[in-house]
Amino acid sequence: MFDYTATYTDQYQITMSQVYFQKGLGDETAIFDYFFRKLPFDNGYAVFAGLEDLLEAIENLHFDEKDLEFLEKEGIDQEFLDYLEDFRFTGNIYASREGDVMFPNRPVVSVEASIIEAQLLETLVLNTLNYQSLIATKASRMRLSAGDRQLVDFGLRRAPGLGGYSASRAAVIGGFDATSNVRSGRDYNMPISGTMAHSFVQRYDEEIESFRDFADIRPHDCVLLVDTYDTLKSGVPNAIAVAKEMEERGDKLKGIRLDSGDLAWLAKESRRMLDEAGLEYVKIAASNQIDEHVIKSLLDQNAPIDLFGVGTSLVTGRPDSALDGVYKLSYANDEPRLKLSETVSKINLPGKKQVYRLFNEDGSFYGGEVVALDGESDIDMMYHSTDPKKFRHLSEFQKEPLLKKVVEDGERLTEPRSVQEIAEFSRKQLSRLPVEFKRFENPHIYKIGLSAKLKDQRDSLVEHHKSKV
Amino acid sequence: MFDYTATYTDQYQITMSQVYFQKGLGDETAIFDYFFRKLPFDNGYAVFAGLEDLLEAIENLHFDEKDLEFLEKEGIDQEFLDYLEDFRFTGNIYASREGDVMFPNRPVVSVEASIIEAQLLETLVLNTLNYQSLIATKASRMRLSAGDRQLVDFGLRRAPGLGGYSASRAAVIGGFDATSNVRSGRDYNMPISGTMAHSFVQRYDEEIESFRDFADIRPHDCVLLVDTYDTLKSGVPNAIAVAKEMEERGDKLKGIRLDSGDLAWLAKESRRMLDEAGLEYVKIAASNQIDEHVIKSLLDQNAPIDLFGVGTSLVTGRPDSALDGVYKLSYANDEPRLKLSETVSKINLPGKKQVYRLFNEDGSFYGGEVVALDGESDIDMMYHSTDPKKFRHLSEFQKEPLLKKVVEDGERLTEPRSVQEIAEFSRKQLSRLPVEFKRFENPHIYKIGLSAKLKDQRDSLVEHHKSKV
Repeated sequence: MFDYTATYTDQYQITMSQVYFQKGLGDETAIFDYFFRKLPFDNGYAVFAGLEDLLEAIENLHFDEKDLEFLEKEGIDQEFLDYLEDFRFTGNIYASREGDVMFPNRPVVSVEASIIEAQLLETLVLNTLNYQSLIATKASRMRLSAGDRQLVDFGLRRAPGLGGYSASRAAVIGGFDATSNVRSGRDYNMPISGTMAHSFVQRYDEEIESFRDFADIRPHDCVLLVDTYDTLKSGVPNAIAVAKEMEERGDKLKGIRLDSGDLAWLAKESRRMLDEAGLEYVKIAASNQIDEHVIKSLLDQNAPIDLFGVGTSLVTGRPDSALDGVYKLSYANDEPRLKLSETVSKINLPGKKQVYRLFNEDGSFYGGEVVALDGESDIDMMYHSTDPKKFRHLSEFQKEPLLKKVVEDGERLTEPRSVQEIAEFSRKQLSRLPVEFKRFENPHIYKIGLSAKLKDQRDSLVEHHKSKV
Repeated sequence: MFDYTATYTDQYQITMSQVYFQKGLGDETAIFDYFFRKLPFDNGYAVFAGLEDLLEAIENLHFDEKDLEFLEKEGIDQEFLDYLEDFRFTGNIYASREGDVMFPNRPVVSVEASIIEAQLLETLVLNTLNYQSLIATKASRMRLSAGDRQLVDFGLRRAPGLGGYSASRAAVIGGFDATSNVRSGRDYNMPISGTMAHSFVQRYDEEIESFRDFADIRPHDCVLLVDTYDTLKSGVPNAIAVAKEMEERGDKLKGIRLDSGDLAWLAKESRRMLDEAGLEYVKIAASNQIDEHVIKSLLDQNAPIDLFGVGTSLVTGRPDSALDGVYKLSYANDEPRLKLSETVSKINLPGKKQVYRLFNEDGSFYGGEVVALDGESDIDMMYHSTDPKKFRHLSEFQKEPLLKKVVEDGERLTEPRSVQEIAEFSRKQLSRLPVEFKRFENPHIYKIGLSAKLKDQRDSLVEHHKSKV
């Protein structure tokens, strides 16, 4: 793992904290909310990922000797350096469950701590959750396209540097079956998988010799890459020959991989050749510039592909490449806090809050959530965030609070969950989301409403600040 | 730093290596070339970055106990596990200088080692060089747009997870002045920088009180964020008032930061207000969705902005988000090696090679390079890679070899270079590249040609493989 230290942050988090410290404000309680504003990929939902990694990093977060030396050189005052030397996170964290679906403009995580501690977490929270949630969401779209075909992450080589380490984790949370990334597989206990590279075939004078050697040494895990010279004239016939030789030894060829050319046509031709040779059990894997749209198109054409290897588009989260998550102050100095904006939808929700998901009587998701003040009871109406004419009665719905306390006084309250557990939970939650939210084109918009009290609190703070300007 | 171990790789690198090992082929010499095929952003050049990080990781690369345990569980044979336990890289590496400009379809790095050692480096090479070169290239474009204005990386919060750690490094190599990323600043000895966040202003009941506290504690490093409530009616007037108070104490306000709204118009209005107050020395910083095109547009409008803070578009390398670098086998089993492809431009260059840059008599870059076989002398012609009718005499040019041996028998031959040194070298090299290659729209195409011997070698191998199919 990366040795996260508390300097894994933006410089201003430290200078602002120094000001709070020296002005005697450092101990006052603050609440910051992590939320995002826009769904990536014009998708109908996002998948929340990165929480376990974040909590682990926070649990161990401190300034080490090198950090303190560096900050001293940067002119940070000695008294504050002494404070930083003892810095540990001792506050509370409320969070949605990792793997759950999430929607814009409602808290996903809230941090309640001294203003310095909460401030010093900001960059780490954003860096961890924004990227993993982006990738899990992208992976989830590919899972929707792929149905029950296998999906394997091949992205490490095109990943954004060390970002690849957590991209593989997020891919599995979003619905991938395995990753080629051995280190992430090791650390996160995830299935790893792979085939062979062109270099392996190139090393031999004859393609078939490379296939034979691989089949001999890895008989139970043999997927032959068939496009090094000519897929249908050389690769597939050689793979068939080797599969027959394997049968004689009681082994079975697992599959072939197509990595160039027209994948739909090549898959059909390859399938036909394999089947004619009595090799119905040999699977076909495909890779090369795959994304959720290519998968959909290939399956729409009935391409007989059993496994998709996905690299660049998965780990970069193209075309968005970033989730726009933010971390906004909603409470400090004993008062709810507001940031005004020219754009009314960018005004934050002040105060400590809870989010309730709405369920139909049969337990399915209605497709909406209401954000309320913490402790509010009898929330019987929800209001549109910006259009006062839009509101809705809530009496028909079951409501379930989404923000659970996961860290109290700096201690984790919950056992760490494995990636497989999170992935399984994510799959279940997604299955409860009505299909209209899962289509790629103009998905149904999930409603995020405000309780009357929260709306009033926000509106009166807006009035207060506007009147001062 | 991340504790790179040799499982930071794709699963197939290990299984292919196992086959080589068990077939007794593991010790034979192989050469792999790292190169890329397409310039990102339709740019006229790319900036080579990531080499020092890569060499450091390779120098210490090994399989640790956890790696070996995991691989054993994954069914890797005991004899090969014993080999992996002792694995160290003991080969040679030839590389362009980090920070230099680089172009498609010619080796940037070549690894010459036992086929297992060379194969096991592949993913690490690609993961490190692809991302850092992408980001350095993006940064370089912003530097071209920004002229001598300050450029600061604000990207860690939107960065692809831990990718942000090296993104900041690559940004400085590409021409950024500083980063907000404290940890990267610490580890890579780079200038760090920052302003203040909206949360800081929100914490106070009155905006001006937040400005006063910051100016009091950080008088030499005070950049006030002026858009929390209303930029021109509240933020700038309050900043002016505090600047005047600072003057009375003998301090000087360093700047204000605009983070929303029409940056061109707000910068002009703010400049006017500051100047009218006699605060000509107060700088204006701008952030919010900045990229090279926005910078250019703002400066075309004469927006008086002194510093740009750039986040998402820098660290994601939008819209490309990945450099398509590959690592291809060019020599093994005592012979040059070829990968055929339907696309002739995707056929690799077989054999051990050198790259020569062409210089005009006055030392400026001609705008072309010739790839030749290693050891070739008197290279007097270069040929177009795919069009046999295109060739060029080279007698008028000075030629300089670009691939230098940087690792011999596993030992580094060169002292590590600092990020600042690399950035300075990059700046110089870029200044030698004619301006036509640096425009954003349809830049001049840098010529990569082949020597006669290399072309003949490739063409005869192509014939050989095609005749077999």
